[in-house]
Amino acid sequence: MRHLLSTKGIDRATAVGILDVAEDMADVATREVKKLPTLRGKTVINLFFEDSTRTRTSFELAAKRLSADLVTFSAKGSSVSKGESLKDTAQTLAAMGADAVVIRHSASGAAHVLAQSGWIDAAILNAGDGTHEHPTQALLDAYTMRKRLHGVASRGRDLDGLRVTIVGDILHSRVARSNVWLLEALGASVTLVAPATLLPSDLSTWPVTYGYSFDAALDQSPDVVMMLRIQAERMSAAFFPNAREYAREWGLDDERLDRLRADTMVMHPGPMNRGLEISARAADSPRSTVLEQVANGVSIRMAVLYLLLSGEREADQ
Amino acid sequence: MRHLLSTKGIDRATAVGILDVAEDMADVATREVKKLPTLRGKTVINLFFEDSTRTRTSFELAAKRLSADLVTFSAKGSSVSKGESLKDTAQTLAAMGADAVVIRHSASGAAHVLAQSGWIDAAILNAGDGTHEHPTQALLDAYTMRKRLHGVASRGRDLDGLRVTIVGDILHSRVARSNVWLLEALGASVTLVAPATLLPSDLSTWPVTYGYSFDAALDQSPDVVMMLRIQAERMSAAFFPNAREYAREWGLDDERLDRLRADTMVMHPGPMNRGLEISARAADSPRSTVLEQVANGVSIRMAVLYLLLSGEREADQ
Amino acid sequence: MRHLLSTKGIDRATAVGILDVAEDMADVATREVKKLPTLRGKTVINLFFEDSTRTRTSFELAAKRLSADLVTFSAKGSSVSKGESLKDTAQTLAAMGADAVVIRHSASGAAHVLAQSGWIDAAILNAGDGTHEHPTQALLDAYTMRKRLHGVASRGRDLDGLRVTIVGDILHSRVARSNVWLLEALGASVTLVAPATLLPSDLSTWPVTYGYSFDAALDQSPDVVMMLRIQAERMSAAFFPNAREYAREWGLDDERLDRLRADTMVMHPGPMNRGLEISARAADSPRSTVLEQVANGVSIRMAVLYLLLSGEREADQ
Repeated sequence: MRHLLSTKGIDRATAVGILDVAEDMADVATREVKKLPTLRGKTVINLFFEDSTRTRTSFELAAKRLSADLVTFSAKGSSVSKGESLKDTAQTLAAMGADAVVIRHSASGAAHVLAQSGWIDAAILNAGDGTHEHPTQALLDAYTMRKRLHGVASRGRDLDGLRVTIVGDILHSRVARSNVWLLEALGASVTLVAPATLLPSDLSTWPVTYGYSFDAALDQSPDVVMMLRIQAERMSAAFFPNAREYAREWGLDDERLDRLRADTMVMHPGPMNRGLEISARAADSPRSTVLEQVANGVSIRMAVLYLLLSGEREADQ
Repeated sequence: MRHLLSTKGIDRATAVGILDVAEDMADVATREVKKLPTLRGKTVINLFFEDSTRTRTSFELAAKRLSADLVTFSAKGSSVSKGESLKDTAQTLAAMGADAVVIRHSASGAAHVLAQSGWIDAAILNAGDGTHEHPTQALLDAYTMRKRLHGVASRGRDLDGLRVTIVGDILHSRVARSNVWLLEALGASVTLVAPATLLPSDLSTWPVTYGYSFDAALDQSPDVVMMLRIQAERMSAAFFPNAREYAREWGLDDERLDRLRADTMVMHPGPMNRGLEISARAADSPRSTVLEQVANGVSIRMAVLYLLLSGEREADQ
Repeated sequence: MRHLLSTKGIDRATAVGILDVAEDMADVATREVKKLPTLRGKTVINLFFEDSTRTRTSFELAAKRLSADLVTFSAKGSSVSKGESLKDTAQTLAAMGADAVVIRHSASGAAHVLAQSGWIDAAILNAGDGTHEHPTQALLDAYTMRKRLHGVASRGRDLDGLRVTIVGDILHSRVARSNVWLLEALGASVTLVAPATLLPSDLSTWPVTYGYSFDAALDQSPDVVMMLRIQAERMSAAFFPNAREYAREWGLDDERLDRLRADTMVMHPGPMNRGLEISARAADSPRSTVLEQVANGVSIRMAVLYLLLSGEREADQ
């Protein structure tokens, strides 16, 4: 790998390989000294144009556990959100010796632009670009599913045959997109559930089935139910009277929770709106993988930083 | 110790023991390389719901001098100030592998909630919770008093017989509360001085004497005069016309300074409002321990992090 | 050196010596592990009263590559901008064990005040004070010029005979001032070009020639053209109708670019307003040293931190 921009088009061997390296990284977290010297002297720059305490902190911990130097480059306001300025920012980071840039940006495609521009030679890690992709989230989700399924025997395994239902605002969700492509690569089958106004118009080109009724989807007894975060500011655009109304139709409430099999996984990328898209009982139930996802997020980000920054990066992308 | 939540109920041996470890840590600051490898691979998370540049920086320096990895987890705005969200934040930090969480919060009891919730196994360090406690401030104050009294012969000593007068807005002061309990444990006697409206209503249960006149308190020739910071936004609630009026009655001005013995300590937790609760001459006089308090703050925080994170934490709290 | 406050009065040997150490530091950036253990255990504090992502990040990377602990001390708002509070802040940082303080402040002279006050014994590095000086910027500019002129044979060389033209808002520019003094010390000759309202009134005491026409200055075929950043908020004070009007008279547009010799350097301290004081083609042309300046900035700041913090600082200033 030269960059981590998206999960679209990733092949199964590559995906399984990343998850396997993350297994090794998870072992580091169990040691007395939770630190590897591997990336000593490497410079990782967090370039966040959108706030994200969790993702930023997760990357920061991952970099520090690998002994890299991590610096946060403030990037707020509109002056740096235009194409021209992104160029200057990227070239500045390159000149400062950045080995990797972790970028979150409100514009879909920003990470790709950075990687393909020639402005900067550093490894680019997409930490969320608009409504496009959030590949480390999908990787940590897949890692979490695999770990629940296979435990210590996870290494080398894929997700063949796993049936995953993703529920919520698919239209605006980069988490959903990255999961769809990665899950396909790993052999899982995906069902999307949302109101018609929150499904993308090009859905026919996606490797998924979809529907409009959460309850109908639950009749299929999925192996995984992945809830997306409600973003209240988008509710009006979807012509819903309010978030609670949405929650009643599309939330994982206690009643729906009780319809799940005991071994169905309940996933959420966090932070959760308890009582809206997910009930407190669902969030805290043994089915919930929410905290495993957070823990696995650090391992996945360590794995990706390790693969991109140690040894030889591949010439092609 | 398993956590450091408050000084209430601390026993003398424990308190003296912390001060003794801080002596060792102060020695580190005199070395050519001001750093110990002790906490390498440990993760300390600063979780500050209220701004505090000084306390945050002091903990950050303490963690770095012990070679721990320190990460600041942004926690502003009301969305994370509710109980439910504090739970999710705590569980997220636990999942990320936090070994210690340094929390400052506007709600009294927030640190206790975190420690007793079962949400997180990390050591919790209370860096100020509402009007409740600020235990590292009291410890650094006690350390400063002991050092002034006994110098290099401080190890193992308590504050038996020391007479401390605390002046100002006792009602809202977590610094005053933590000092009252710790000073009692160390054998000092405490007098509180404040306008009646700024004394707590449950004062009869506190191990202190109190009064309403600063000048009358000075007649008793205290060994220590500890001034609290005026917080202007609370003055109106106390029915004072303005801060300067308050300062005239309750400030340590030059005239009052000249009434002190030469060896009376003048303390202030900082940052000072020079000219209000303390005159510039008082702040800069040889009696003032203000800068010793800052320096000792790093040593105390190193000691507490060391005690909580190296070796075996005690099972009980 | 004891501090780095300004370039005014610096002697040639000292200036060349700093540039030579920066050469060594630039070599570090080419290693597999871009890190020296030299400043391990040293505490560097970034004290920025004005925002500056680039300069702050550059110092942070420089400190980390030398293995120093770097802490950012927040210093915003007017409460800390008064003399009295600067004193308390400085004494606090001293008490916390700061070995170096990197200060940026809106008041001209703030760094000098800190260095000469006796409030703090740490090395003070001026990262920009009002309209006064920005010495590391001038040093990295001189380093960049020397490197372009002499390449690997740079060590020990000065800038004797180099003809540098600085264009723009000289009146408010600390970059221009620091460059004027340093370039004089290194033997270069400087021409300033600006509208009359943006030239300082005491210009007769500066070791420069000056003029009001950019085009006339270009007739002299300068070796270096250094463009200053337009700060829009100062345009009205200069009685210019708007920034674009200014750009037409004083900007390095494509037409002016084509009049330059092939080996004339085009410099800019960044961030650039492309299309205003500099055209995109000029910014990206082979003549442009903009990115070399950024890269060299890290080396210069490593050199200065190294000189101030390793071994014995000089007693005199």
